[in-house]
Amino acid sequence: MTDSRISKVKSLIKGHPDFPKPGILFQDIFPVLRNPDVFKDLMDALFEHIKEKAPGVQIIIGLEARGFLFGPILAQRLNCSFVPVRKKGKLPGETETVEYSLEYGTDVFEVQREAFKPGQSVVIIDDLLATGGTMKAACDLMEKVGANVIHCLTVIELADLKGRDKLSKPFSSLITY
Amino acid sequence: MTDSRISKVKSLIKGHPDFPKPGILFQDIFPVLRNPDVFKDLMDALFEHIKEKAPGVQIIIGLEARGFLFGPILAQRLNCSFVPVRKKGKLPGETETVEYSLEYGTDVFEVQREAFKPGQSVVIIDDLLATGGTMKAACDLMEKVGANVIHCLTVIELADLKGRDKLSKPFSSLITY
Repeated sequence: MTDSRISKVKSLIKGHPDFPKPGILFQDIFPVLRNPDVFKDLMDALFEHIKEKAPGVQIIIGLEARGFLFGPILAQRLNCSFVPVRKKGKLPGETETVEYSLEYGTDVFEVQREAFKPGQSVVIIDDLLATGGTMKAACDLMEKVGANVIHCLTVIELADLKGRDKLSKPFSSLITY
Repeated sequence: MTDSRISKVKSLIKGHPDFPKPGILFQDIFPVLRNPDVFKDLMDALFEHIKEKAPGVQIIIGLEARGFLFGPILAQRLNCSFVPVRKKGKLPGETETVEYSLEYGTDVFEVQREAFKPGQSVVIIDDLLATGGTMKAACDLMEKVGANVIHCLTVIELADLKGRDKLSKPFSSLITY
């Protein structure tokens, strides 16, 4: 996606070499959220993107924690539900879980079962796609609860890591590095 | 605060006994976010509350992770910045930290120094005030970066735990249990 709004967003994203560890170039999105006009540009672009790519969406799924920054705003603007995917142990009631691999060891994502009716159309939102492991896990979790993932969307995509090749669902991003 | 919007929000908040451990009654706010109309009522109420109690706010501070659900929406509506307080190790660049006590052991909150100019007026938002330990820590952290906390706001307050007695800054909540 290329438009002047995206260029403004990209100009505020700040690269931090060797964070959180040597060899990693961390792309920090928080400067965008400090600038209300550019943050609005970002949210407008995400909103229009979903309207175009996933017009029938019923639930916006946000991945903990940075997906929480964008998901609720989008759900409000689209007049649909927001449902979080959280790290294990933080959600009460009956839940469904999925385990996924990290660089060292594994982690577990969890959702509340009562948040879903069979066959609902969902869009998964996160800030960044790197290796694709967490987005793939979120897609697998949606399958377990009977939801239909119609689109996955991130603000940033690190193309070199080929994360999108892991995904079997439609994926797009606003900004590619 | 009592109005019909708050009653609707309260009707969707679901109590879960013995979560995350025996003796705790967990108040789950996520059912509110599944209902776009009631979620809008909640955000309208929070927005109006800040307009009344903290009209000069320049930065909305959201505490990880559930403060991220509400802070960005409020910052957009108030046309001001959103800045996160995160658990240690997740924010790049020069940071300031504060240690705070948990039931067992301690944890550390962190913010990015570059997000603040001296004397800016900030409002801290979180979902729930329990013992007040995390809100107090966030206030202390704001002092360290030279910000002026003009109000602290949560959706829910567990009044029995007397968390507000720990705070030296103005505090309010929409719903008290």
